[in-house]
Amino acid sequence: MIVRDFNRIVQEDRDRVVSDAQWTSVRMLLAGDGMGFSFHITILEAGSEHTFEYKNHFESVYCIEGRGRVTDLATGETHPIAPGVMYALNLHDRHRLRADEKLVMACCFNPPVTGTEVHREDGSYAAAEELREA
Amino acid sequence: MIVRDFNRIVQEDRDRVVSDAQWTSVRMLLAGDGMGFSFHITILEAGSEHTFEYKNHFESVYCIEGRGRVTDLATGETHPIAPGVMYALNLHDRHRLRADEKLVMACCFNPPVTGTEVHREDGSYAAAEELREA
Repeated sequence: MIVRDFNRIVQEDRDRVVSDAQWTSVRMLLAGDGMGFSFHITILEAGSEHTFEYKNHFESVYCIEGRGRVTDLATGETHPIAPGVMYALNLHDRHRLRADEKLVMACCFNPPVTGTEVHREDGSYAAAEELREA
Repeated sequence: MIVRDFNRIVQEDRDRVVSDAQWTSVRMLLAGDGMGFSFHITILEAGSEHTFEYKNHFESVYCIEGRGRVTDLATGETHPIAPGVMYALNLHDRHRLRADEKLVMACCFNPPVTGTEVHREDGSYAAAEELREA
């Protein structure tokens, strides 16, 4: 059994904390944990806006705290985000997430994030294979 | 993009709500959603105690709300549960979860739960294959 505490990771295990422009992701589980998915708590700053497209991953995002909006950039449809709302990128959907308030999101990735990915300019993570080739 | 709201599911989509003795699981994502994992919000009533062993699944459990304790029944070790604490059953660990307060947990399962499983007396879910054979 693996037991980890978000608050302890933030204080003591900064290798598991990844930040980019106005977002921070705390990796509770990564590929190396052998679960077949990764699990992150991601915090997006109030007033920030983010465009993501995970071409190589499925991701689900569950709102624990805060309010915002997610726009499916293929259809133009916008959905309100509030505690209890989940969106799942089952089509690797390119999307824009706006944090009207600070958002705290629980995110699952399949395949699991290894921890070595970087967000590319197109908003995607490279697949592990592409990273090995890079 | 799939968008679902916990609060709406609880009110309007009871097929996604599964209850047993003193726990309720709201299936935000199931196998049929094609994400390769399932994602559930599970609520355990204050004062309740549960023994689970997912012999056929990996599960991670992240505490959103409430306090309790989880005991690894192989080692006897007990870990406090509070908001921000996650445990992951990477060894299909048989475990006991006590809810000292009402617990709200975000749970990921791999392989994804199909929605047709039942908890067996030993605390496991049958694998999809076993259910088909049954």
